[in-house]
Amino acid sequence: MAQDTPSPPPVDFETHTSRYRHWKVTFEGEVARLRMDVQEDRPLREGYRLKLNSYDLGVDIELADAIQRLRFEHPEVRVVVVESAKDRIFCAGANINMLATSGHAFKVNFCKFTNETRLALEDASLRSGLKSVAALNGTCAGGGYELALACDEIVLVDDGNSAVSLPEVPLLAVLPGTGGLTRVVDKRKVRRDRADVFCTVAEGIKGKRAKEWGLVDEVVPKSRFEAAVKERAKALAAKGAAEKPGRKGPGVELKPLAPTVSPTQVKYGHVTLDLDRDARTATLTVSGPDADPPKDAAAMRAQGSDLWALRAFRELDDALLRLRINHLEIGLVLLKTRGDLERVLAWDGAVHRSLDDWFVHEVACHMARTLRRLDLTAKSLFAVIDEGSCFGGSLLELALASDRSYMLDDGKGAVRVATSAMNGGPLPMSNGLTRLQSRLLAEPDRVGEILAAKEPFDARAAEEAGLVTFALDAIDWEDEVRVACEERASLSPDSLTGMEANLRWGGPETMETKVFGRLTAWQNWIFQRPNAVGEKGALTMYGKPERPKFDWNRT
Amino acid sequence: MAQDTPSPPPVDFETHTSRYRHWKVTFEGEVARLRMDVQEDRPLREGYRLKLNSYDLGVDIELADAIQRLRFEHPEVRVVVVESAKDRIFCAGANINMLATSGHAFKVNFCKFTNETRLALEDASLRSGLKSVAALNGTCAGGGYELALACDEIVLVDDGNSAVSLPEVPLLAVLPGTGGLTRVVDKRKVRRDRADVFCTVAEGIKGKRAKEWGLVDEVVPKSRFEAAVKERAKALAAKGAAEKPGRKGPGVELKPLAPTVSPTQVKYGHVTLDLDRDARTATLTVSGPDADPPKDAAAMRAQGSDLWALRAFRELDDALLRLRINHLEIGLVLLKTRGDLERVLAWDGAVHRSLDDWFVHEVACHMARTLRRLDLTAKSLFAVIDEGSCFGGSLLELALASDRSYMLDDGKGAVRVATSAMNGGPLPMSNGLTRLQSRLLAEPDRVGEILAAKEPFDARAAEEAGLVTFALDAIDWEDEVRVACEERASLSPDSLTGMEANLRWGGPETMETKVFGRLTAWQNWIFQRPNAVGEKGALTMYGKPERPKFDWNRT
Repeated sequence: MAQDTPSPPPVDFETHTSRYRHWKVTFEGEVARLRMDVQEDRPLREGYRLKLNSYDLGVDIELADAIQRLRFEHPEVRVVVVESAKDRIFCAGANINMLATSGHAFKVNFCKFTNETRLALEDASLRSGLKSVAALNGTCAGGGYELALACDEIVLVDDGNSAVSLPEVPLLAVLPGTGGLTRVVDKRKVRRDRADVFCTVAEGIKGKRAKEWGLVDEVVPKSRFEAAVKERAKALAAKGAAEKPGRKGPGVELKPLAPTVSPTQVKYGHVTLDLDRDARTATLTVSGPDADPPKDAAAMRAQGSDLWALRAFRELDDALLRLRINHLEIGLVLLKTRGDLERVLAWDGAVHRSLDDWFVHEVACHMARTLRRLDLTAKSLFAVIDEGSCFGGSLLELALASDRSYMLDDGKGAVRVATSAMNGGPLPMSNGLTRLQSRLLAEPDRVGEILAAKEPFDARAAEEAGLVTFALDAIDWEDEVRVACEERASLSPDSLTGMEANLRWGGPETMETKVFGRLTAWQNWIFQRPNAVGEKGALTMYGKPERPKFDWNRT
Repeated sequence: MAQDTPSPPPVDFETHTSRYRHWKVTFEGEVARLRMDVQEDRPLREGYRLKLNSYDLGVDIELADAIQRLRFEHPEVRVVVVESAKDRIFCAGANINMLATSGHAFKVNFCKFTNETRLALEDASLRSGLKSVAALNGTCAGGGYELALACDEIVLVDDGNSAVSLPEVPLLAVLPGTGGLTRVVDKRKVRRDRADVFCTVAEGIKGKRAKEWGLVDEVVPKSRFEAAVKERAKALAAKGAAEKPGRKGPGVELKPLAPTVSPTQVKYGHVTLDLDRDARTATLTVSGPDADPPKDAAAMRAQGSDLWALRAFRELDDALLRLRINHLEIGLVLLKTRGDLERVLAWDGAVHRSLDDWFVHEVACHMARTLRRLDLTAKSLFAVIDEGSCFGGSLLELALASDRSYMLDDGKGAVRVATSAMNGGPLPMSNGLTRLQSRLLAEPDRVGEILAAKEPFDARAAEEAGLVTFALDAIDWEDEVRVACEERASLSPDSLTGMEANLRWGGPETMETKVFGRLTAWQNWIFQRPNAVGEKGALTMYGKPERPKFDWNRT
């Protein structure tokens, strides 16, 4: 039973099209092809082979990178065809030997990342009109079908053999962990009894029935497969163009972040992650812009990926991923900011005024995704609002995303926070609300009042307005924050993860919150159960001649 | 680490006011007092003492019974004051030694039952205008506060000492498992950062701050406590009376069910539960009414708790509870009906026509609660619709609640199913939709068409309409059903529990589905983690001099 050990080697989340091992991206005008061609002998770490286009974290990091680059670097693309380079195999899903030999925390965080990647595909469709079609030329199992489910449409070859399947329950005694169950009933609205049958049939469902049950949108004979995919892609491209006609023109290249990494620090241009392993605490500091904002969208595009609002949030995103996967021992993250509050607000204003520009819109969508990644990070988050901080607008979201916030009342009103138009809509949480709305569920009318405030809030005003948890006098500041951090770091990591997962998303639920709230929690449970991961559990026994042994008691 | 063994002795869920050990019910006109006075030395099973008004399943069975009887036997009651007979202690929550010495499956099912009891309190308020106020005369911790949260209002004594608290995370490394986290942010809409602080402070929050943060509705000095509770009760009673003015007149006594129990069968008047332990399968057969329906509401009241629609569903409810707690080894439940389809429909019509009568309304609410209990039962449910069955209207809900349904096509159209007005609203699921709406998420317009059908559906028509999963010819019937059952019973119980929990509630979420979907799943996960239940876990070490030892890795 692989129990949180051995911890895998540190993972680097940066990559580039030119370095992909497992995917090929090609372009034909408004259509991009994202072709999965997993190299069996190039897993992220030793110990398993990536057979049959099965994937590990390394494969998914490339996929996430490819989707991101399509949005920024290729505004001419309206539709992406997700396909396979292997004959008669689309994708066999997450690699089972990788899962069986991974620790619990790694498995859970691997699933979280792959879930976010699939949501990124849907986000691109919803917010940027970048549509997707899954071209299933053959076997499409488990995570492979979950990838297809994240696409707008699914075309399955009708060759008498190729099926879609979610064989996790019957074969592995775990759940489809990448949104499959939720998307089957909530996105594709497959009837629940049919979904029940589908999810227990290891060989899956093919042909006419797959279409009739709504598991795919079209089944076509091999001879017409490529033509049918092209047709669908063309229609989707037209739809995407109609939704986002302004998305065009030269793309913006995403340059490497290339942080400096030491055992105690990851240092980027605008973001610094300091690690205190003994205290199980990290400090994540985001610096505000060091110049005034570009005057318009064209000037922003000219700055490209060096634009503060893009660069800083890309760095934050990378730091969060490192925290999750490479630093399991960190339980508490202190969020700090450094810089000029008014300048942050000026940048937010510039971004907000240009949201109808495709690039600036992409920048805002990226900020929103990064903040949702923060919400979903299973570490306690405390915002520390002290001298020199600049929690305004988009950076105030860091404090609003935190489990709690401490603000220094220096008696002179020098420490302030402020809202901007960016707090009013462009950065939604997974539940569809803004972080201010989520925060003020009991007093929805207060949201508008706070957004309309003309002046920044000093500590007492911020506490009064409900923007921070505690405003502390200088004399109490150091001790109170220190004690709060020590107390937090002393609590059981598991119970904190569960508690935060329940308190962070009050209010409405969406497919996205269902994936992370309901499905992920059940999957986490099952990933602990002896029937899956015990010595004779199904995941452990997979590929061995003996059958797994189950404890038959139902919970 | 207590791992599903030893299984506790079989539990009997029937009780009566006259036999309560832990609660006293008294009446003062429209106000009932439900006074918790837990007898320390009378736990449900050996091995722990129920100190400080802490509770176990036995205590909660009495509470559930008391709430049920208030609804049926005391229509004159408009408000219930939930209070304590102990000095300076309201309730210390679920008994920790009981939890620490219980197996995983028992813990999970205990929490599910207590959750349903609290939802019953809210259901009484929402649907019957039976309001509740929690009178906190002292310490109110964990499950005690979760009970208070289920009440409409909470009054806390202000004695400089008494606090409300959810100390599960800091003290026990588990979650408040009875809806506490959800109700704090979703029902009471406590700000999420304040909720975070509250849930990590073992000693809780008292006085002015408890009121300011929205954790309670009022704090009052001891001298004015009783008067304040009475005032609140009076105001709530008026509210309840305004909502349900027709709720009055003599009550209807709930007579004992007193089934005949053998190792292989539990037999009631209208319900039979047959247990096949070797096949890990149970058959639950509900018989339709054996006489025509009473002609009006008065005639129904005259039949009292012998009324088929009440008695049959009370028996079903009891059978489900026994299945969950006493028969862990059963993984699959076959749902069957026996009787006259037209007669079931006639009864449904009679019930539906009289829904404005308080008693008939209570009967329908009880049917709805029982069906939600069925939805929430962690066993696979297959409806078997065969010769002699009567899946019509309220009994069709059994098939609609099932994970799948098999219907015999006898070629003569003798096996039929039918809808009634009862499928159109009075029996909502936890997600707020009817089972037909939940089933036809993809085709909402079909719901109305199906409800409007003038004739019952034979097997082919039912399959066509989407009412059943499979219609099978007589020649295939026996083999196909047998194989389906064998296959189901061969799958991992845990993965099935997780799968069903994700497929059964498509569509919208409510506080109720959040409690069971999100909170419960996280709690189940944590109940498995070594940090809680391991040899040095916090739950195991509770009350011992040493500190628990945690694995600090965050998942």
